[in-house]
Order: sequence, then C-alpha cells, then structure tokens
Amino acid sequence: MAFIITGAKVLSPAAPYSFGEKDVLISDEGKIEKVAPSIKVAGAGIERIDAKGKILLPGLVNTHTHAAMSLLRGVGDDLHLFEWLSKDIWPREKKMSAAHVRAGTLLACAEFIRAGTTAFNDMYFHMDAVAEAADESGLRAVLGYGMIDMNDFEGKGRKELAIAEKFNKDWKGQSSLISCSIAPHAPHTCSKELLEASATLAKKLGCPLHIHAAETRKELADVLAKTKKRPIDLLDKCGCLGAHTILAHGVYASKSEVSLVAKRGASLSHCPVSNLKLAGGGAAPIPEYLAAGANLSLGTDGAASNNSLDLFESMKVGAIEQKNFRFDAAAVKADDYLHMATAGGVKALGIKAGKIATGYLADLVLLDSHSPNLVPFTNNAGWLVYAAGPQNVTDVMVNGKWLMRDRVLLTLDEEKILASAQKAANELK
Amino acid sequence: MAFIITGAKVLSPAAPYSFGEKDVLISDEGKIEKVAPSIKVAGAGIERIDAKGKILLPGLVNTHTHAAMSLLRGVGDDLHLFEWLSKDIWPREKKMSAAHVRAGTLLACAEFIRAGTTAFNDMYFHMDAVAEAADESGLRAVLGYGMIDMNDFEGKGRKELAIAEKFNKDWKGQSSLISCSIAPHAPHTCSKELLEASATLAKKLGCPLHIHAAETRKELADVLAKTKKRPIDLLDKCGCLGAHTILAHGVYASKSEVSLVAKRGASLSHCPVSNLKLAGGGAAPIPEYLAAGANLSLGTDGAASNNSLDLFESMKVGAIEQKNFRFDAAAVKADDYLHMATAGGVKALGIKAGKIATGYLADLVLLDSHSPNLVPFTNNAGWLVYAAGPQNVTDVMVNGKWLMRDRVLLTLDEEKILASAQKAANELK
Repeated sequence: MAFIITGAKVLSPAAPYSFGEKDVLISDEGKIEKVAPSIKVAGAGIERIDAKGKILLPGLVNTHTHAAMSLLRGVGDDLHLFEWLSKDIWPREKKMSAAHVRAGTLLACAEFIRAGTTAFNDMYFHMDAVAEAADESGLRAVLGYGMIDMNDFEGKGRKELAIAEKFNKDWKGQSSLISCSIAPHAPHTCSKELLEASATLAKKLGCPLHIHAAETRKELADVLAKTKKRPIDLLDKCGCLGAHTILAHGVYASKSEVSLVAKRGASLSHCPVSNLKLAGGGAAPIPEYLAAGANLSLGTDGAASNNSLDLFESMKVGAIEQKNFRFDAAAVKADDYLHMATAGGVKALGIKAGKIATGYLADLVLLDSHSPNLVPFTNNAGWLVYAAGPQNVTDVMVNGKWLMRDRVLLTLDEEKILASAQKAANELK
Repeated sequence: MAFIITGAKVLSPAAPYSFGEKDVLISDEGKIEKVAPSIKVAGAGIERIDAKGKILLPGLVNTHTHAAMSLLRGVGDDLHLFEWLSKDIWPREKKMSAAHVRAGTLLACAEFIRAGTTAFNDMYFHMDAVAEAADESGLRAVLGYGMIDMNDFEGKGRKELAIAEKFNKDWKGQSSLISCSIAPHAPHTCSKELLEASATLAKKLGCPLHIHAAETRKELADVLAKTKKRPIDLLDKCGCLGAHTILAHGVYASKSEVSLVAKRGASLSHCPVSNLKLAGGGAAPIPEYLAAGANLSLGTDGAASNNSLDLFESMKVGAIEQKNFRFDAAAVKADDYLHMATAGGVKALGIKAGKIATGYLADLVLLDSHSPNLVPFTNNAGWLVYAAGPQNVTDVMVNGKWLMRDRVLLTLDEEKILASAQKAANELK
C-alpha cells in the first residue's frame, strides 16, 4: 500500500548535499513516486507517516563485505596479517558449515539494519546460506561465491567456476532483492585462467564481477613477481575491469591504474577501517580516483577485520584519514564520502536507489536528529558524515517495506539471532 | 543509600582486560565498597540493581576538550586549519557570551553522558558558565581558563593569570565533582613568562596544569624559530612539565621529549580523531610513549574539530591509525587504548576512579552487550575497543549517582538543552 513520509528533512539528490523539509510519496511497488514540499493526496487508504524532527536518507550501501565473518569478530585482533589469517581465521573458516554461515550472515544483517545500511555486496562460501539469510532479512544483496584456485586452474579453478555458476543459476529470479555476482577472490589467489574465465562468465550472466585488488604491499609485490604486472593492470589484461566490476580496496594503485579504473567505468569499494586495522601501511589514493572521475563506494569489509559493520564510521574514518595522510584538510570532502555511501554504492551494484527522487527505489533510513551528538543542525554533508552514528538510526526501509521501526527489528528475530551467532562462534573455537 | 549492581560482566581492574560476572557494592558515599562473585548483605535497605546481560565499565575519561565548542560543530569542516580558525572559529568565539558557553557546555555534557564519559578536562573561557553547567550535569570535571598572551606578558599575560586564579579561588570547595586547573593555552600562544608564572601558580594552588603542546608541524617550526627549543623541551625549561601536567596532543615530539614526558611523570592526552580531521599530517609516537612508560590518556578535543565527543570512537580510531601509520598491526593493542580511556585518564586528572575495585569512586557505565555489533562475546579488550559505541551505553553513574538510566538522562533536561544549543549556535552565525 502506498504511503507518505511527512515532515522529515530530506537529503538532496546530489552534492553539495543539504536537507529540506519535504513529503515523500512511496508507491505500492516500493518506489519513490513523488518528492515535494507538501503532498496532498485525495482519497483514503494512503497512510501518512509523521517523521517530524527526523532526517530522511537513502539507505547506506556496503559494497564490500563478508557478512558471515561477523562470527569471527574479535578473533586475533592486534596480530600481524599472516599470523591472524593462518592461526585464527583460516582454521575457523575450515570448520564453518552452511548453518554457521547462515547464523553469521543473519547477525550481520541485524547489524546492517541497525546501522542504516540497506544493501550489501558479499563474497564468501556456502552462498546458499548467505542468500537465504539475506532474503529473510529483507535487505537488498548482491552475492558472489569467492573463488580461489591458487594458480591451479585445472585442478581447482574449474570446480570453483562451476560452484559459482550453479549458485547464480539457482538464485536467478528467486527474489527481487537478491542478485548474484561472479567473485574471483583476488589477483594473487586466482590463476590468470580463472580471472579470464570469471570475466567471460560475468559477461555471459550479465552480472557484476566482485574482486579484491591492490589491498596490500605484499599482494602488489607477489603479483608483480609472478606476472610482471601490477594487480589492477593484470585484471584489465584478463578482461576483469569493466563497467560492472567492483574492486575492493584499491590501495596500492598507480596513477595509471587509477586512470584505468575510471576509463573502464569500474567501481572502487574503499574500505578505510579494515585497511587501517590490518595495518596496510598506506591509504587509498582517493583524491586521484576522484580527479580521474572513477565511481567510488564504501565497504566495511568483514567484521573480523573492522570490527564493525558501520558505514557512518567508514565515512568519517575514511575522510579524516585521507586528510591527515595527505596533510591537507581539503583533500577530500564530506560530500565525497556521503556520495560514496549512497549514490556511488548503488551505481557500483547496479541498483536504482541511493537518491530520494522520483522513480528511485524506496530504500530509506530515518535518523533522529534530536540527539546531542547531532546538534546544532548545520544543513550540510559534514553535519552527518562527521557526527552521526548508529545510535541515531531509528527506522529502515527496503523496497518500501519497513525492516526496523522505532529501533525494533521487524523482519528478524533479534534474540534468536544473537543466541545462534554466539553458539556458532563457540563451535568454531 | 548503598546498593548492589548484580549480574553484570565487570571489567577487570588491570590489563590484559577481561570481564567476569561479579556483584559490585556501592556505598552511601559513592564509592565501590566491594567487588565479589556474589555479595549477600544482611538487612534491608540495600537496593539490588539487576544488570544481567550488561557490561559494567569504569566511566570513560576525556582528558582534553573544549566542551562549549559543541556549538561550533560542523562549522568550516574540510577547510585548512588557519582558514578554519580565522574565517569560522575565531569570529564566532568573539561573539560567545557566558550564556552561549553555558548552552554549549550543557550540550556537550549530554553527549558525554550518552557516550559513557564520566569525567572531562576542559579548557575554555567564561569558565564560570562551564563550571555551572558541569555541576548541573553531575559529571566530574577539571576546568581551566585558557590563557593566551601572544608574547605580551605585561599587557595581557598578567590579566590572564588573574582571571585564571580568580576562577580557581571562586570554585574551590564549591562542589566535590568540580576541580580547577591552570591552563596556559600552548607554547606558541603564551610568552615564556606566562608559561613560567603558570607553572608557579599551579604549584601554589596544587592543581593540574593543562596545555596544548606539539600539535602541529607549524607550531613546532614557530616555537623552534622563536625559542630555539622544541615545544615540550620549552615547557620543561619553564617548569610546566611535572606530575600534574596534562599535555594535549604531543604529536610532534622527539624521542628525547617523549622520554622527558615519562621522566617528569606528566600525562599525555592523545587526541587522534581531532589530529586526523585537522590534517596534521602525522601521528603521535604512541609506541614510544608506551615504551618510555609515560601515562597516556585520551581526549576528543572540542566538537568543532572532531566532530563527536565519543571516546569509544577515539579508542578505535587511535588504535587502528597507529597500526597503519607504523605498518604494524601489533604496534599498539586494544588493552593500551582501554587503559588510556579509563585508568590512564583518571591518573592524568588525579581522580581515584577508572577501576572497578574496592575504594575507587563509583563512576560507572553499563553497556547492553545484547546487540548485534557486540556479538560474539570474546572477553577481551578488543571486543570493546573495536566494536562498542554510544548505541550500547544504557546507564551512567558518577559518584554513585545515576546520570542516565535506560538511556534517559536524569540530571539534564535534554529537550531544553538541545533547543538552547541550537538557538545559541544560530546567534553565533
């Protein structure tokens, strides 16, 4: 049933962002039908939702995560990357069943909703379980089976491709909110043949290609040694860099690789919190990506390396880290980061949302601005990016359907999810 | 009246931190009288507060802030430091009356409480208004009038000292929660005479000395050019570096200055979020301060340069920024940052709190750990430092008196405070 959100301050559709009091009419089909200062609709049956004193935002979009890794939150903090992976993460991942992955994904979905996220782009394994959990939550999701062959295409790569293709076929048309990607893991964990075959398969299926790239110095060194190419150059050579590509991290990218990302129309998923916590030692060249006109979006990465799934935090940390790293308070702007978390995110995932404007999907979030951390109201992007957090999120809607109202989750049984996740985490020890 | 908090997981008194289910008996006088697995008290009249499923922490301690600058939150974001100060901050500060400072401080106090902070160390002007607001809030506060003479000791410095001394005398013994400091602003904004006289006055009054130092490269260059000494060396030369000194920032400190801070028993107030946002271009040498055995604490700085007053965020951002800056995930640990925000903070301010142990002040915070961002429970400092936030804070107590219960502020009229702060901010435009 159609309804009108009335009285909220609504984010403008483009940067420089501001907020204006408007009514928003949402159709039966879950789309934004009209945005205007005062919508009077004749006839009964259209509910008016009073959102006076609230802020209406497009839902935030997380373009790189491993949702089920929320089960591994807090495991091996403060360790060096390889020690962390080999001692703590990989042994637990080996034990993970589909039931564990389902429990972890549901936990992540609950956290996403509470933090104002309405769509996420996931790469993991036991993807049927991820899809079932995402579907249950009512969030919008793009899901890909993470393929790794460690340079053994004939022995492993072909099997990985078959699993990925089967997952995509099984879920095709199953839910209007779930779509699939092809997700080769990374340039240093996939053979050239697997990268090439992934590109071909993604093209055939008409779906996004999601891959880690240029995350660490070691990856850069390893890929250079093995292929004589830098990671993003290698991806381009293998056909992996196109308009439907989402590159996670992209930290150690040369200027020419940055240009290539923009030229090919690929999207970056910038993951500043994870990059800092894993101590990569650098910072993604965001001002260069911006100057090149690349599409930028934000990811939290998995909760094992973040340890939150909070894009408000990612916006702030990303922006302030860039400023400091470049010794330039104007190196990036709050507008850039709010764009990444909304319009940039949906562009990366090929979703028509991320803006409060006629014809866009009603993936929306209400914030209570009547909170000491959000006063005074300065009506600009910085007001939100540098000060808002999950504590301010009260209501979340995807496709015109409420997932949270007044801080109560509606689609998920939170008590049960928390208990199951704790149990699953205990089983992985 | 005495009472018992029962059923909560209580933070251990020292690092490596963990949480254990214990009862905590709090005396009439607002002190922790006993911590034990199960406290049975004979006789009636002792309330038992059921905190099952909650986490009991010492209240967080903010050792460097300018509370009233919350009115300037979001003003001039993304500008270079000098432009920000000269175009946006200073003109507004010139217009600030005592009523404005009072409104801004009350706003900050509401935000402190909601973010689990129980004590703060403030430097600003119209300090009577700050003290009145702090007193009304029920928070513990150390307050100093920020003295600036721009090298004109006879013309300005003496007057500044007189204002500072009067404020200290007026508030002596007025409230058990409010104490005063002597607060010369910084090595580059105070004459040598003012620094020396400040050290003498702080010693005479037996109070802390609170000062900015080594915050920016420009300050370092200016102080070196003017005095041939580095900022912290200069402070030592002027007698300002002692066991009751709180140095805010300390980013551009040499190894020998770091050693000197430790040797003199001074405390650092590490302000990572503000340092990043103002784009200083470096990172405080925290591993060196830790190795030298200096007392470290955390500050948010004012909300104009943060833009939050959230020490959970400061713990996480500080730790992950250090890891990345040092290209070393083990450069600092979650334990270090939790210590800074609690025991390190109270040591800096000379308060006997910061630990849940017999004889310590009952400045305490309850968190609801039954939240998706805090599951699974891993029972270590990282569980808290890397994932908790203001959304998890439910109850706050100072000196055995509740300031917030079930997320409702008890000492402050939040509606009125938000309205007054917005009005005050509008008047400063």
